Amino acid sequence: MQAMTGPLRSHLDPEFVLLLDDVRARLTTLFQAPPDHFTFALSGTGTTGMDAAAANLLEPGMMVLCVVNGYFGDRLAQVCALHGAFVERLEGEWGQAIDPAQVERVMSDGRFDVVAIVHGETSTGVINPVGEVAAIARQHDALLIVDAVTSLGAVPVDVAAWNADACYSCSQKGIGAPSGLAPITFSARLRHRRAGTPPFSLDVKKLEDFWVRRRYHHTISAPMIYALHAALTEAAEEGLEARWKRHADAHSALVAGLDAIGLCLLPALAHRLHSLNAVCVPDGVDASEVKDCMLTRHQIEIGAGLGPLAGKIWRIGLMGSGATIHNAEKVVTALAKSLGRTPLSR
Amino acid sequence: MQAMTGPLRSHLDPEFVLLLDDVRARLTTLFQAPPDHFTFALSGTGTTGMDAAAANLLEPGMMVLCVVNGYFGDRLAQVCALHGAFVERLEGEWGQAIDPAQVERVMSDGRFDVVAIVHGETSTGVINPVGEVAAIARQHDALLIVDAVTSLGAVPVDVAAWNADACYSCSQKGIGAPSGLAPITFSARLRHRRAGTPPFSLDVKKLEDFWVRRRYHHTISAPMIYALHAALTEAAEEGLEARWKRHADAHSALVAGLDAIGLCLLPALAHRLHSLNAVCVPDGVDASEVKDCMLTRHQIEIGAGLGPLAGKIWRIGLMGSGATIHNAEKVVTALAKSLGRTPLSR
Repeated sequence: MQAMTGPLRSHLDPEFVLLLDDVRARLTTLFQAPPDHFTFALSGTGTTGMDAAAANLLEPGMMVLCVVNGYFGDRLAQVCALHGAFVERLEGEWGQAIDPAQVERVMSDGRFDVVAIVHGETSTGVINPVGEVAAIARQHDALLIVDAVTSLGAVPVDVAAWNADACYSCSQKGIGAPSGLAPITFSARLRHRRAGTPPFSLDVKKLEDFWVRRRYHHTISAPMIYALHAALTEAAEEGLEARWKRHADAHSALVAGLDAIGLCLLPALAHRLHSLNAVCVPDGVDASEVKDCMLTRHQIEIGAGLGPLAGKIWRIGLMGSGATIHNAEKVVTALAKSLGRTPLSR
Repeated sequence: MQAMTGPLRSHLDPEFVLLLDDVRARLTTLFQAPPDHFTFALSGTGTTGMDAAAANLLEPGMMVLCVVNGYFGDRLAQVCALHGAFVERLEGEWGQAIDPAQVERVMSDGRFDVVAIVHGETSTGVINPVGEVAAIARQHDALLIVDAVTSLGAVPVDVAAWNADACYSCSQKGIGAPSGLAPITFSARLRHRRAGTPPFSLDVKKLEDFWVRRRYHHTISAPMIYALHAALTEAAEEGLEARWKRHADAHSALVAGLDAIGLCLLPALAHRLHSLNAVCVPDGVDASEVKDCMLTRHQIEIGAGLGPLAGKIWRIGLMGSGATIHNAEKVVTALAKSLGRTPLSR
């Protein structure tokens, strides 16, 4: 927030464009993207990133297999269809990770050009096995779209290992800047083969003209870039491994605390997204009353369940600079008070 | 910039959504939009606004007449074509306003479904006669797209009088906030008849669900909304008439100062956009050398000419809180020094 109050330099100012270069380099590190990927920050939000990935990768008539085991997988399927693709939804249970064997089975006849999957499913607190799904996509020479909105900066995202052709995120979750930019990376393969007609503001070739060749395309928000740059610098100083560990530790502290007041998480142990914790609402408890109490009495905002999980879970974010054991303990204490429960231990 | 450092409330926080309501009301006033228009701020930049206007209004096969007398008119024609319309370009000379009689002539056979026009052409410093063009569009029952990127908040924009179906702007020019949001307004007629499939992030129905019906769509940037709200509050305190007069006065002071050092503006007197002044580069002067000198020696950024006007004009912005007689005089003094000219008067 301090960084945002820096001088309002223009989008082509000689000093400002050096900052843009640094943002690109730092995002490449965070995505673990190959150097020939074009990695940058799109003006807009994670939703803009999803549109941009689909618009630049898909051509009308392409066959897309989209993993749908949550609200954002469902949205990704909708977005791929909006951009002209035939979308087959590979449905999985909300709150469970997709089984790669299921993907392998559907992919076996080789009819899919593209696989689309959400890495960290924000609606269920599940982390999908993108590495294994990516290997299957590669085997069938399919392009790969990965939604890393809630995973980037919080848990390992490995665009190079996955060979993801489009992978997008947002600035306000694992990175810990305010929302307003969508970090995104596109493979060389995607950029060279692209034949669709994406909207002007989302066109990767035009965006590369701006970010790399410094030609005017749009007036990027200087305060947003300052904020993102500051957050990425902090992430680099912390180190990726340490950052992932901090998120894991905060998550573990939360789970332990919840356990002590008799609450459990929706996803199985092996598939939990550290940055977003889906907590089961106990029988007989009004989920939204507790959510309101958390906000008004304890100044802690937790998320509601979406879709089929409405009223059945709360979603607790521990992400970016907020991913600390202290915060985990604070939220457990507040939740215990809101529920009128006493911790069994501590 | 102070406003941006406010608390990072979520996009559905009960207090934050009241601020969104106020932003809508204040933008409605600024656009002079009818109450049944849906007026809000899109996440992204002016370029996003252009895409959103075209994506929500156009259907494949529609016939669009696009006025092209500058870089952004040309871009608007490209964008309309990208969204599936047949676009006829009504070319006008760069640096002159379009002649409404020309529009009338081309429209006479009634084959156009849509008219698209840039109000304040940022590349030439020209203000197009949108009022007269809008009347012609109405006569032929054509829908109307107006680009108000450089005019909104600086000179009168009158969406109700124009009956514009889509009109968009940006946050960083006449409004005077940082870039990162695109104020935009859509008519009831457009929202009711829409049949296209806009990208998810630009879909007016989904955006109305968020802004009006408070359903999650995307995570809007709280700092950007705070900044826009602060700028709109300032604009309301100043009053629209006073704000337009301030822009006119700063413009007049600039023109007088430029005249005193032997420089003149490109557009004719009657068609000058107060917020963006296109100054003719004198024969034998290297435009980019002077531009660099202004930035490095005088810390004043002026714009270069675009397209056919590259090297032939400088573009001087006097907009938002920067539109003052003091700033106009400062830029003239710096320009005189950069050119090695002595003011003839003062």
